[in-house]
Amino acid sequence: MTMRDTHILLAHGNGGRRMRELIDEVFARHLANPWLDTHVDAVTLPIQGNEIVITTDGFTVQPLEFPGGDIGSLAVHGTVNDLAVAGATPLYLSLNAFIEEGLAIEQLERIVASLAQAAQQAGVQVVTGDTKVVRRGEGGGLYLATTGVGTRDPQLRLGLDRVRLGDVVLVSGPVGDHGIAVMLAREEFGLRGDVASDSASVFPLCRALLDLPGLRFMRDPTRGGLVTVAHDIAAATQAQVRLDELQIPVRDPVRSVCEMLGYDPLYLACEGRAVAVVSPGSAQEALARWRGMPQGGQAAIVGTLVSGRTGVVLATELGGERMLDELEDEPLPRIC
Amino acid sequence: MTMRDTHILLAHGNGGRRMRELIDEVFARHLANPWLDTHVDAVTLPIQGNEIVITTDGFTVQPLEFPGGDIGSLAVHGTVNDLAVAGATPLYLSLNAFIEEGLAIEQLERIVASLAQAAQQAGVQVVTGDTKVVRRGEGGGLYLATTGVGTRDPQLRLGLDRVRLGDVVLVSGPVGDHGIAVMLAREEFGLRGDVASDSASVFPLCRALLDLPGLRFMRDPTRGGLVTVAHDIAAATQAQVRLDELQIPVRDPVRSVCEMLGYDPLYLACEGRAVAVVSPGSAQEALARWRGMPQGGQAAIVGTLVSGRTGVVLATELGGERMLDELEDEPLPRIC
Repeated sequence: MTMRDTHILLAHGNGGRRMRELIDEVFARHLANPWLDTHVDAVTLPIQGNEIVITTDGFTVQPLEFPGGDIGSLAVHGTVNDLAVAGATPLYLSLNAFIEEGLAIEQLERIVASLAQAAQQAGVQVVTGDTKVVRRGEGGGLYLATTGVGTRDPQLRLGLDRVRLGDVVLVSGPVGDHGIAVMLAREEFGLRGDVASDSASVFPLCRALLDLPGLRFMRDPTRGGLVTVAHDIAAATQAQVRLDELQIPVRDPVRSVCEMLGYDPLYLACEGRAVAVVSPGSAQEALARWRGMPQGGQAAIVGTLVSGRTGVVLATELGGERMLDELEDEPLPRIC
Repeated sequence: MTMRDTHILLAHGNGGRRMRELIDEVFARHLANPWLDTHVDAVTLPIQGNEIVITTDGFTVQPLEFPGGDIGSLAVHGTVNDLAVAGATPLYLSLNAFIEEGLAIEQLERIVASLAQAAQQAGVQVVTGDTKVVRRGEGGGLYLATTGVGTRDPQLRLGLDRVRLGDVVLVSGPVGDHGIAVMLAREEFGLRGDVASDSASVFPLCRALLDLPGLRFMRDPTRGGLVTVAHDIAAATQAQVRLDELQIPVRDPVRSVCEMLGYDPLYLACEGRAVAVVSPGSAQEALARWRGMPQGGQAAIVGTLVSGRTGVVLATELGGERMLDELEDEPLPRIC
């Protein structure tokens, strides 16, 4: 590195020498790949055949680094996962960074290196990017926005319109880890816990189900968690999504923190889980496939689509049932 | 509108009912097009043949609205223009919004409506998006990030590697308007002036030159202005870019404000201008084509690539010459 600055200055955003240094020495160095040319504003995407799929996400997680990940790896996973649950193969990312004046360049570099590693592991290339620097007090350290491009088999039919009464809801692993890990990392509650974010690419999990004839729909339960995905399913089908509390995997430390602070893990963000809706006849096969994978060891069948008043109902551990409303208030801001 | 809130709350970012209202009633309502489905995270792009080109940009302009545009139209133009100068036809945009708690929803809606109008005029569709809400004091009202996708004729050869000694530099219109318009809109200098941003799509200007055999390279002079583009050309070719002060179009009110405040218009951002490098034999034809267009009436030949010490030299009005250094300090933060 020939950069002499230790912290981000407004001049790192002005289009001149310092900005070029920042881009060359922090971004391009870690993200280097044959397609990334940081000296041009637009790049050609080598895409063959198939159907092209695009998605976009913003990231504002606070703190920027937390057990199990950071805003860089999270941005990769969040974007890759939106493509994966759509049945696509993630290929390329664009990256926008909004950097607050005063951010330590050392921290920025750690985050960019982590983003690069996550991209490599997920099999995607960052092909274009942009950086902006905002004044102290006008940002939260670092915000990222990523757009992902992938390809999909044009024959593949997946979507909420394919979901039917009787279909079964699966989740690929314990819920709420990401939300609780980030919250504990903030230290504002004076709690410490042994919870790491589940942040990861769910592409292997999603790919594993693509040839299952009964696969209807997949989604990653991020903001608003499992209940919010269930509400989307209910709203699209006018059915009732009945979740079974006993079957929903929640790690003990996550459950403890939730009980202490009054959160419901079913509303908390995951960043490395997939939810799938499959026909009743495909449910056991889908479960077996997920359980046979390192990421899916705790996968579970957690719900069913039934007739009745539309909405989301929880069959509780005690044998009762209660309506799970749509999320109204923000339980945890800047969780993703 | 059924939204009851007048200002953005943290709950507008949490994945629940308020977020859906915000997306449906502010974003989807204005941006509606056949490809935008705000209930899915990834969409299919209908792209036929050709080469696919991608670009991305972040926008942090302050104030959010200024004479001649706002952060919404600016985001469209900035992204479309990066595709246009690469020789591509802009087709699709993804849109990320980072919204600060407390932003008036009325203002947000004006901006989204303006974005939608700019997209329509530029011939692009917003096909996917994401919103995040950050706490008061952690944002600058609104930041946008847009990724643009377009197609390009695979036969087209454009790039800094095609630029040669003797080549000629053209600009499509007066420089510095955007920078000065935004600065005056801030009112922090107690100045008022009759300057509107030049924010516009340069796609028509770029398309008009694409079949010119001598066309080497195009770029839009945004952050760092004309001089920064000239430095990029000089760095890539190791030639000297000689700009002719007398030929560079600068509007009188822009010149006056620059003189009063000590800015150099050659370093100020434009958002609706294109710079082209063409062979000497194509210069007059390129100039004639631009001058024949509504946006190019004040187009000019402003420089030449000569041998000599690499860098950017200004032949001054008074007959002297001076080196124009790379931009070091930020003259105007949050200009784009």
